[in-house]
Amino acid sequence: MSKPLILVSNDDGITSRGIRCLVESMAEIGEVVVVAPDSPQSGMGHAITVGETLRLSEVDIFKNVKAFKCSGTPADCVKIAKHHVFNDRMPDLVVSGINHGSNTSISILYSGTMSAAIEGAIEGMPSIGFSLCDYSAEADLSHVGEYVKSIAKQVLSHSLPKGVALNVNIPPKRNEKIKGIKVCRQARAKWQEEFDERFDPNGRPYFWMAGNFVNYDKGEDNDEWAIANNYVSIVPCIFDLTAHHAISILNDEGDIVGEND
Amino acid sequence: MSKPLILVSNDDGITSRGIRCLVESMAEIGEVVVVAPDSPQSGMGHAITVGETLRLSEVDIFKNVKAFKCSGTPADCVKIAKHHVFNDRMPDLVVSGINHGSNTSISILYSGTMSAAIEGAIEGMPSIGFSLCDYSAEADLSHVGEYVKSIAKQVLSHSLPKGVALNVNIPPKRNEKIKGIKVCRQARAKWQEEFDERFDPNGRPYFWMAGNFVNYDKGEDNDEWAIANNYVSIVPCIFDLTAHHAISILNDEGDIVGEND
Repeated sequence: MSKPLILVSNDDGITSRGIRCLVESMAEIGEVVVVAPDSPQSGMGHAITVGETLRLSEVDIFKNVKAFKCSGTPADCVKIAKHHVFNDRMPDLVVSGINHGSNTSISILYSGTMSAAIEGAIEGMPSIGFSLCDYSAEADLSHVGEYVKSIAKQVLSHSLPKGVALNVNIPPKRNEKIKGIKVCRQARAKWQEEFDERFDPNGRPYFWMAGNFVNYDKGEDNDEWAIANNYVSIVPCIFDLTAHHAISILNDEGDIVGEND
Repeated sequence: MSKPLILVSNDDGITSRGIRCLVESMAEIGEVVVVAPDSPQSGMGHAITVGETLRLSEVDIFKNVKAFKCSGTPADCVKIAKHHVFNDRMPDLVVSGINHGSNTSISILYSGTMSAAIEGAIEGMPSIGFSLCDYSAEADLSHVGEYVKSIAKQVLSHSLPKGVALNVNIPPKRNEKIKGIKVCRQARAKWQEEFDERFDPNGRPYFWMAGNFVNYDKGEDNDEWAIANNYVSIVPCIFDLTAHHAISILNDEGDIVGEND
């Protein structure tokens, strides 16, 4: 039986420690091809490159693994991987990460890591984004490989429901052993931004965006709870953004649609 | 009674014709403040500016309307508007657009226009993204203002369900009069990319991403159907991406969560 074909991407860039950890874990269970950004793309959300060109070149930085760096976003990487690198052969699995930092809750919307996974799901490929809830570039990754491999293997054997990608967050290395894995919903939380105004040497203002994460969610079935309680969280994610429950509410209001003739 | 405070943003940039049309329409029903990108940000998805600074400066380009151009993404514009320009006073309405081009179906994920609206909804403000299904910078906008005003007024008077933003698409100007407004779901469709490989004067390859929109959806309750049949489409959108239906499926598979102790 041939080994599964696994596409690896990320948003921290192809030279990050997180993608190296992911590549090494995936190389144990499949044939790996890497297509990842040539520079950090954190916070890129589901951006794609419109009106500009893309560069793609092969690099020799992973042992026995074919790899390409791309000038575009994480979503671009998945698109060019499928349609150019693989020439429309479908990978059996798309994995993105391991992100240096949490992508729980609302952060999924801003996450380049998850945009690669969601792009994979749009293309019909089982897809997973992995993040370590530790922002340090020097974070301890020693506990991560075990979970990454286990979850990837399960997805390879069971696949995923159509139109669903997985957002996996892994607690930082703590003294206490990780308790297990929880399938969760996205916690209700947001970033509360602050803008730090400074002045450049010419006296012109500029701003640093800073923010605090505010968790409003008191439930125990969400990803924030899982990470805080030392579980790996898995949130299955959709890309149909329709608020189906709101359709009848808006139609009830009547006036919003006015007269149709 | 004081006029409602309306924040206007977009992704085509503050000098586009679409935002001018939106500003003029909103000025008829409220006090308008514009915070919009200083350059085109199409395809930016829900990107935010991380690790770089932002510029913000007041510009005098709309008659009797306070306006600021920002060096960031559409989502950045909404954040800096709320926390810096308004100093945490809440606008009564956030509108984004009018985008030059369709944001129906899956395009919502890549849309800078909708990221501004969704960011507004995350911040708890009633928010609407408007797009005209005509990619031409010279598109006829004469039929748009009527619908934009009518929908904005309804949202101001009825508000929106919590956690919901509206994705409004307006058919291009045709000979036939628009038939009305339909509340829809997001059509099941995708972009089928092609990568056009070329070579620069130094013989190094580069790529243009091109794509065709492929609609798989045979339903008559979706936004693609509405636009094709000359209706304005309104899709209510969420930012909780949890695939709630998949949680029990993943838990049933059992093996994905392994042993918890």
